[in-house]
Order: sequence, then C-alpha cells, then structure tokens
Amino acid sequence: MDPQSRNAFIISDRTAVTAEALGNSLLSQFPTVRFNIEILPFIDSQVKANRAVELINQANVESGQKPIVFATLVDDDVRGVISRSDCEFFDLFDTFVNPLELVLGTESSHKVGLSHGMSNAQGYTARIGAMNYALETDDGIETRSYRRAQIIIVGVSRSGKTPTCLYLALQYGVYAANYPLTDSELDSNRLPEVLEAHKDKLFGLTIDPFRLQQIRQERYNRASYASARQCQYEVAQTEAIFRRSNVMFLNSTQMSVEELGAKIMQKTGLKRQY
Amino acid sequence: MDPQSRNAFIISDRTAVTAEALGNSLLSQFPTVRFNIEILPFIDSQVKANRAVELINQANVESGQKPIVFATLVDDDVRGVISRSDCEFFDLFDTFVNPLELVLGTESSHKVGLSHGMSNAQGYTARIGAMNYALETDDGIETRSYRRAQIIIVGVSRSGKTPTCLYLALQYGVYAANYPLTDSELDSNRLPEVLEAHKDKLFGLTIDPFRLQQIRQERYNRASYASARQCQYEVAQTEAIFRRSNVMFLNSTQMSVEELGAKIMQKTGLKRQY
Repeated sequence: MDPQSRNAFIISDRTAVTAEALGNSLLSQFPTVRFNIEILPFIDSQVKANRAVELINQANVESGQKPIVFATLVDDDVRGVISRSDCEFFDLFDTFVNPLELVLGTESSHKVGLSHGMSNAQGYTARIGAMNYALETDDGIETRSYRRAQIIIVGVSRSGKTPTCLYLALQYGVYAANYPLTDSELDSNRLPEVLEAHKDKLFGLTIDPFRLQQIRQERYNRASYASARQCQYEVAQTEAIFRRSNVMFLNSTQMSVEELGAKIMQKTGLKRQY
Repeated sequence: MDPQSRNAFIISDRTAVTAEALGNSLLSQFPTVRFNIEILPFIDSQVKANRAVELINQANVESGQKPIVFATLVDDDVRGVISRSDCEFFDLFDTFVNPLELVLGTESSHKVGLSHGMSNAQGYTARIGAMNYALETDDGIETRSYRRAQIIIVGVSRSGKTPTCLYLALQYGVYAANYPLTDSELDSNRLPEVLEAHKDKLFGLTIDPFRLQQIRQERYNRASYASARQCQYEVAQTEAIFRRSNVMFLNSTQMSVEELGAKIMQKTGLKRQY
C-alpha cells in the first residue's frame, strides 16, 4: 500500500451515523492522506467484535500499517475486544464518559442505543408524521392544512424547497410545507392570499439565477422555463416580494440541506420537536 | 436550579448536527440528570464566540453550576475563546486531532466545514438527485425508470417504504425506488412482473400487523383497509412472497429510519455514493 494511504475503520454498536460523521470530519483534516474507510455498524456482541478484529488485523498485515479505528461502543467488553486489536484506537464516545461522570458526580448507565433508535417512540412518530406532512403539502398542494404547518418555505421552482422541508422533518421533526411562486403570482408583485393568511410562518428561499438555470436545464427541456431571462425575472421578483412583505429569506446556492436546515432553525427560533 | 438539572451547550462552527448527535448520546448515559440543552451552530468567528461565552457565563451565574460545553470547533482562536468561559469544556473534535497528527506523521489542515457542507459539490448534487429520484418513483410510480434504481424497496402500504427511501437518498446518496404490493398482487402469491425484471435490486420491508393496523387507523377512515383481518392477510402474503422469491427483508416495527438505512446498506453491500 502506498505510504500516503491508510486503512480506517468506523465501528459502532448502533447505526454508525454519528461515528461516521465525526470520523470523516477528523480524517478530512488530513487531505494529503488517502483513507480507505470501512464502516462496521451494529457491533453489539463479542462475537461480532471478534469478526471486526479479524478485519482490522488482516488490514494491518496486508498494509504493514496499523489501521485507524474510530469507535462509539458503549459496552465495556465489546470495546475491550476492539481496542486490543492491531490498531490505532480512537474512542469517540468513552473518552468523554469518565470525565463526564466526574463532572456530574454520578455514574453513567452504559446503555446502548439511546440515540438514532426507537427508544423515544413518541419522538420517532413525530418525525415520521412530519415527513408525511412535508410530502402531503409539497409543491403548494393541500394549502388547507397550513394551519398545522410550523413553517412554510416559499420560493421559485427548483430553489431547494422540497429537500429542505424533508430534512427539517427528518432531522428536527418540524412540520414544514412548501409553496412555489408561479408566474402570475410573481407578476402581481405580492404574496398570494393563501400565504398572507400565514405570514408569520413564511420563510423564503432564493438562489443564484445562473445556478437555477443550470438546474432547470439539466432536468427539463422546456426552453422558456430554463431560459436565463426567465430565471433572472423569477429570482428578482421573488426577492422583491420577500423584501416588500418582510419575509425572512436565505440564498440556497452555496448551502447544503444540513446548512439550510440549521440556519432556518436558528433564524426562526424553531426548536427540535422531539 | 434543581441540583439534578444541568445546563449544557453544544457549539459548532458548522451545522452542529454531529456535535448534537454525539453530545445527546453522551448525555443520555446520565438518565438521572435533567439537561437543559442549547445548540449554538455556525460559531465561526471570535465575535460570535464572545456572544456564546456571554450565554455560558450567564448560565453559570444563574444556576451556580458550570455548564457543560460540547464543542466541535476547528479554528484555534474560536476554540480558545469558548474554552476560557466558565464551563466544563469537552472538545469532541480537537481531542483527537493531535493524536491523529502523531499517528499519521503529518499536520492537520485546520480547515472548517469539510463535512455537511457543499465542499463536495458533486457529492451533494448526487444526494439531491437521489432525493428527487425517490420522490419521482415513490409508491410504484415511474416503474420505467427502475433501470436507474440501485435498490427497490417493496412492501405493503404504510410499512415505512417512503421514509426509508428518502433517508437512503439523503444520507447515502443511494437511488432508492419503492413499490407497494396491492391486493391483487398479494392474491396472486408472486412478485409482479415489473419487479421480477429487477429481482436483484429488491429489498422487502415487513411490519407487525398490529402496528400496521394502528398506523392505518390513525391516518385513514376506510375500515376495510385498516381492519385487523386485512393487515394480517397483507403481511402474511407479503412475507410468503418474499420467502418464495428469495427477497431479503427486514421487519420495520422496532426500527428507526436510521437503523433501517444502516441495516439495508450492510445487508445489500451498497456503498455511500459520495
């Protein structure tokens, strides 16, 4: 193996979603090294831990370098098995448990699976309910149910409304509807009546017109819809309406749904619903 | 403040999604303590850090106890400002950077925002493409585009197919379609032809019939659709078809979308697409 390459394992007793996010984030701080990353979720028994150790030790032998292991393992025995493999062991979870016990003056429960699982069944139902709501109210349908909305995302077609609503539902359990501003609404220079009635829930998305044109061209053939002129007109009118009606808005061009979601929560003061 | 309560802050220079997941996971190990958690995302300047410090110090004064602070902050100056506040400081990120530098024999880049952002623009476009694909092929529509699918989730109505597909798209960038088995298909005792043609991509979801009945009753009034008899019949027929056709399947009753997603990735061997 090339000296600038390195094997890495991300090991968790649950989904590994958190371990993977933090592990990737740490490894991305070393852009000159090419990492070969293997994810091992649901390592929740000594039998499974032993199988993981075989993979780690084999990678050590084959590459001549100890693999980096990032782990979030609550069970002491399982963690013990993994930590004794031929690896450089980084314990993303337990590193903090003992100092936390000292600070809080109480022992930890050492129970697996209290996040990203079903332990909070009511909260989970709330998130799925929010996802269903986002789907049912997508693209301006079912405006009658806007009374249930905690937020209504407004913007031109293809400005990122739907992914943002689905992410707000999944990540935060927030009931998010979305409404696309159509040509005739844009021509009128003001918010449609159906939105005026829920003005305190509106949040706007805008986008760079050149990026909008690119997205529309990739997906649709209708020339007028994807023309530079049309995209520039729609974005300019939308932003003018947002400003005139005092609707908070963000530009989605350079932002991922995770960033949009976090910014929207911050700006609106909405709280996680579970 | 009640002695079993404690203020906690989760501070990040980006979305705080990772810090929040790990912080919540750590705090959930102390079920006897009631935590009052505040999330502070996008703390990426000394000005913003100073504002965060004011909040922390105020919580310290008001509660008479140092707040717990979980931080993922890449910038040394920002981190320095926060760490000098009146808090118990847990550095979820930097704790591992120096040991990693030693192991890798190279310095870290100290660059902010390499995860959950747009730095990987191609990967981000892939995830949004996958989300659009999941929406376009939801509920058995557009079966003509199954050639593009990497996985087709099959199951009865309300077994969790749509949230699972959307999560696979958002989290892993996987193109996931879903197909609901209808009454006439269940009566026939075999997979519909449109699925036979893509048999290597099928993945089944099943569910406890009592839970299914509960979900359907909450959402719909049609008595036959939500009857115990109908739910039991549908689930039994579906599982029989999965077994006869050798379609891998999971029971979604006790699993969150995060767990379903991670299990499906593991069982199918599909890889993250970005």
